[in-house]
Amino acid sequence: MKVVITGGTGMLGRRLALRILARPELEGPDGTAQNVEKVVLFDAFDPVETPPEDPRVEIVTGDICDRATVDELIDGATDSVFHFAAVVSGGAEADFDLGYAVNLDGGRNVLEAARRTGRCPKIVFTSSLAVYGGERSVDDSTALTPQTSYGTQKAIGELLVNDYTRKGFVDGRTLRLPTIVIRPGKPNAAASGFASSILREPLQGDEVGNPVTPESRMLILSPKRAVQAFIDIHNADGAALGMNRALMMNGISPMVSEMLDGLRRYAGDAVADRVRSEPDALIQEIVDGWAWFSDGARARALGMEPDASLQEIIETFVNEELDGSFVS
Amino acid sequence: MKVVITGGTGMLGRRLALRILARPELEGPDGTAQNVEKVVLFDAFDPVETPPEDPRVEIVTGDICDRATVDELIDGATDSVFHFAAVVSGGAEADFDLGYAVNLDGGRNVLEAARRTGRCPKIVFTSSLAVYGGERSVDDSTALTPQTSYGTQKAIGELLVNDYTRKGFVDGRTLRLPTIVIRPGKPNAAASGFASSILREPLQGDEVGNPVTPESRMLILSPKRAVQAFIDIHNADGAALGMNRALMMNGISPMVSEMLDGLRRYAGDAVADRVRSEPDALIQEIVDGWAWFSDGARARALGMEPDASLQEIIETFVNEELDGSFVS
Repeated sequence: MKVVITGGTGMLGRRLALRILARPELEGPDGTAQNVEKVVLFDAFDPVETPPEDPRVEIVTGDICDRATVDELIDGATDSVFHFAAVVSGGAEADFDLGYAVNLDGGRNVLEAARRTGRCPKIVFTSSLAVYGGERSVDDSTALTPQTSYGTQKAIGELLVNDYTRKGFVDGRTLRLPTIVIRPGKPNAAASGFASSILREPLQGDEVGNPVTPESRMLILSPKRAVQAFIDIHNADGAALGMNRALMMNGISPMVSEMLDGLRRYAGDAVADRVRSEPDALIQEIVDGWAWFSDGARARALGMEPDASLQEIIETFVNEELDGSFVS
Repeated sequence: MKVVITGGTGMLGRRLALRILARPELEGPDGTAQNVEKVVLFDAFDPVETPPEDPRVEIVTGDICDRATVDELIDGATDSVFHFAAVVSGGAEADFDLGYAVNLDGGRNVLEAARRTGRCPKIVFTSSLAVYGGERSVDDSTALTPQTSYGTQKAIGELLVNDYTRKGFVDGRTLRLPTIVIRPGKPNAAASGFASSILREPLQGDEVGNPVTPESRMLILSPKRAVQAFIDIHNADGAALGMNRALMMNGISPMVSEMLDGLRRYAGDAVADRVRSEPDALIQEIVDGWAWFSDGARARALGMEPDASLQEIIETFVNEELDGSFVS
């Protein structure tokens, strides 16, 4: 099978590609795992991390907003598309037009290109907790009342995926992700970025500012569990998903103080003391608008599991990204 | 003040214009009713009904999908926009691309043009019961799970109105309308059109087919009450509306058999016998996907009232559209 991953050299795209290349796991229409002959990693940027070294990988750099580019990318041989390309929350809030161009029009380009293939490819769309707003606890049937442009664009994408699927143009599935923690690499423009930074930077020997109150809660999920969830939702029985193809993925819901206490227990005082309070009213306001508890019954029924604990999240990061050791 | 009505020569647009021209009712930012100096009726089609004869009226024919046209329409003098222009439900289902072009991109053109004025005009957006799906009873907080392209496009429009309002680009309000009954004139491509036809055509001496079962229920509202609701939501206190600017308008919920019994009581057997059963599986399926009961608490709190009875709806139609008499 041929798989296209937009945002394919980014954090989740790259890790999903590595996983897909490692062994046949993505299922075809007959429900059996298929050999992957080609994985196209499409991105607007040159890779920050080393891309997978595999003859089946093709890296394409381009603009998701350009319809001709996307039409060429998602061709008649494409079986499955994972659509990660997006302007993140803080970026979409700072640049209204860019956010709509990439997150809304770029998503429409992906759906239109897939539709034109005439073979109803699978489209796995990445949504976010940010589609909710003002609710502390959410489930699959909670009304979407986004309070950011990013959340609005993701909610619109979900509606489009459902409609294109209903019409038989694509076989769409949407995964609403919790905040991904611990993201490796450098901070990005996501308003949620601090939730990774306050754990990642101290483990690597760097000081870091925490922009929110200790009582702030976040719904979080590790990159490893997120990649597993994308494979699970790709392989889920479409008929069982029904007309609403969006699933809320579960996570764990620590307070920021619990995250920092967990860091202290795992790595010691010297590491935990590298976090200083640096209140940021804008980030606090955005975070306060997010749900921090999810009861995603549909994801659970599909066997999609969150991390067991904060300890697991920190250990996974240290083992996978820091070769098993941190700067004490 | 200057008011722009898109779809302005259509059924609701024209009636709203007549009402606005009759006396100062639309309120300005200071909360007092303003004199209306200009009402621009924008439409894709030449007027079917006689447009209002008033020196303050300007009729503009054009394509809502053309951004330059809309930028010119909604200029820096515009205080309020009522956005009715849309491809109706049956039309959007039959022509997927046209539906998205008019209902989604056309709506974005309106919001963008309003944003460019830099003066945060009021935008009253027309949504529909079709944003729901699979629920029999809905309220303001019911999740939007549209099951038609039209409903999807309206749900997306609601999200955009909320986001543009949150950003301070427009002062948006969205009214989710029940099915408008009795629509005057000829049948249109709306899947809900039969709900008017089965009352309107017999009252005018014509036979008509009823495409749905007697047990089918519809949530309905007269054009007169709808026009009042548009004025009410235009004048509502924006701060009180909060971040979700969409209100579900209430209606009455007769079964089709009750509508036909009501017609029989009002107009007699000869009139009611002009309705014959003509099942249409597609329309039945669409109608079965719609909610038929609304508990719109927010609209009620704003004093927005539905019709008191089916009798009132029939009487209003006969008095306003048939000069008080029907073909017995």
